[in-house]
Amino acid sequence: MKIEVADHSGFCFGVKRAIKIVEDNLKKEQDVYCLGPLIHNPQVVKSLMNRGLKIVKDISIIKEGALVISAHGLEPELVKKAAEKGLKIIDATCPLVKKAQKYAEQLKNDKYHIIIIGDKNHAETKGIVGFCGTNFQVVGNKSEIDIKRLQSDKKIGIVSQTTQGIWNLREISTTALPYSDELRIYNTICETTLKKQTAARQLAKRSDVMIVIGGYNSANTKRLVEVSKETGVKTYHIETAQDINLAWLKDKKKIGISAGASTSPESIKEVITVIKKQTTIL
Amino acid sequence: MKIEVADHSGFCFGVKRAIKIVEDNLKKEQDVYCLGPLIHNPQVVKSLMNRGLKIVKDISIIKEGALVISAHGLEPELVKKAAEKGLKIIDATCPLVKKAQKYAEQLKNDKYHIIIIGDKNHAETKGIVGFCGTNFQVVGNKSEIDIKRLQSDKKIGIVSQTTQGIWNLREISTTALPYSDELRIYNTICETTLKKQTAARQLAKRSDVMIVIGGYNSANTKRLVEVSKETGVKTYHIETAQDINLAWLKDKKKIGISAGASTSPESIKEVITVIKKQTTIL
Repeated sequence: MKIEVADHSGFCFGVKRAIKIVEDNLKKEQDVYCLGPLIHNPQVVKSLMNRGLKIVKDISIIKEGALVISAHGLEPELVKKAAEKGLKIIDATCPLVKKAQKYAEQLKNDKYHIIIIGDKNHAETKGIVGFCGTNFQVVGNKSEIDIKRLQSDKKIGIVSQTTQGIWNLREISTTALPYSDELRIYNTICETTLKKQTAARQLAKRSDVMIVIGGYNSANTKRLVEVSKETGVKTYHIETAQDINLAWLKDKKKIGISAGASTSPESIKEVITVIKKQTTIL
Repeated sequence: MKIEVADHSGFCFGVKRAIKIVEDNLKKEQDVYCLGPLIHNPQVVKSLMNRGLKIVKDISIIKEGALVISAHGLEPELVKKAAEKGLKIIDATCPLVKKAQKYAEQLKNDKYHIIIIGDKNHAETKGIVGFCGTNFQVVGNKSEIDIKRLQSDKKIGIVSQTTQGIWNLREISTTALPYSDELRIYNTICETTLKKQTAARQLAKRSDVMIVIGGYNSANTKRLVEVSKETGVKTYHIETAQDINLAWLKDKKKIGISAGASTSPESIKEVITVIKKQTTIL
């Protein structure tokens, strides 16, 4: 049996950076809060909570202290509210997400109708939306585009959640193109995301089964699962080694592993160890 | 036998406007020159020449008088040269071509690598190129894109010759997209061109044979021929009624006619008359 881990698996630059910012501030600050999970990995977040990070759902709960903006960013309205409360703002927004926010703001200022490609309920999308003013639509795929709104606005701008697939961006762009006099597309899909997807696809093609590790709430991990499934290979999404089911690996010779941007190296190692142990039993 | 003319056939707004500008000026001015054909219809141009219009190939030939800029536009360098010579400039550039030139200039000023979709040797393309500075490439289709140049420039802008097809613009845009951080697409394909293509396609589908009338040097007419051929129907490109071959119409019940943007209503009528006469003989 062969276990192979896809290139570019696990922690990306933005996630590493966010964790380090929080670790540094936990040493300096008394009360460090984060609105929702810092990154979409419950285990890593739990470990930071054990070291003092407080995760809250609503800013109104915080009386004083420091507020960390998660790697996914935050709506400017909420940042303003936190600053007005006198909270210290610690910005752990991934620089690539910040770029997407900046482009959205520019499109708003230049009076474009903005299409945001992403998941409406994801923190990153909500953050980007916060920079768009009122003339925008969030779409997950081309079938969700509100064509009527494109027809009334001839200047159309597109930004994408950083973890989307390039094919989705292409399809949505070509759908919008005939309705526009000017189409401005900001390709804000992060390069690591693209590399992860390519590597996962390639590995899936030469594997008998694929295990994708990452938070169940992680957009980029879900995308890796999709990409792997598209190759036709049986693919399982797990959060930790404990989620592995012995039956999945039966009679499989080549096991491929891919991991989302917020999956720690330890978590990947643990999965490999468990697979090796279990397959000895099989 | 049924003869049907496609909707939106013949003279477009820009062509009518250019002819009127020249006719008006021929009454007022002593010497009226045009650099190359005013529009891509040799018969119409000949008729204007009979009324005094002088077509020249090189600006150096002109000593004094007025220079008409053709409907396809002209490189700003040549316009400057003409003005320096003391020639009166009469601008008959189609306003939609002017828009494409303006967008190209804006992309140059904003430091984008510019992709111009068009035919390198067409007057309109040459005119647009004149506004692009040095950082541009002209491509006829996606296979002609110089990817290396896209990779070194992350800001990419696209403008199109006004008579191109929307599918070509779509394909070239999606090919360029993954290489860009920002892709700005100006959809400069003129709406009449699109309507002509759609109408020609629909008519071709219900015809036994298609006759497309227009200058052999006319880009938009050539596109109509392509669009018609794509439906699988036998299609013939003619410039005037004299080009019709009796054999083409034998045993055909439904004859479709489409005409380029610089084809006069008289020319279309003449073709219909000739077809009717010939088919009486058949």
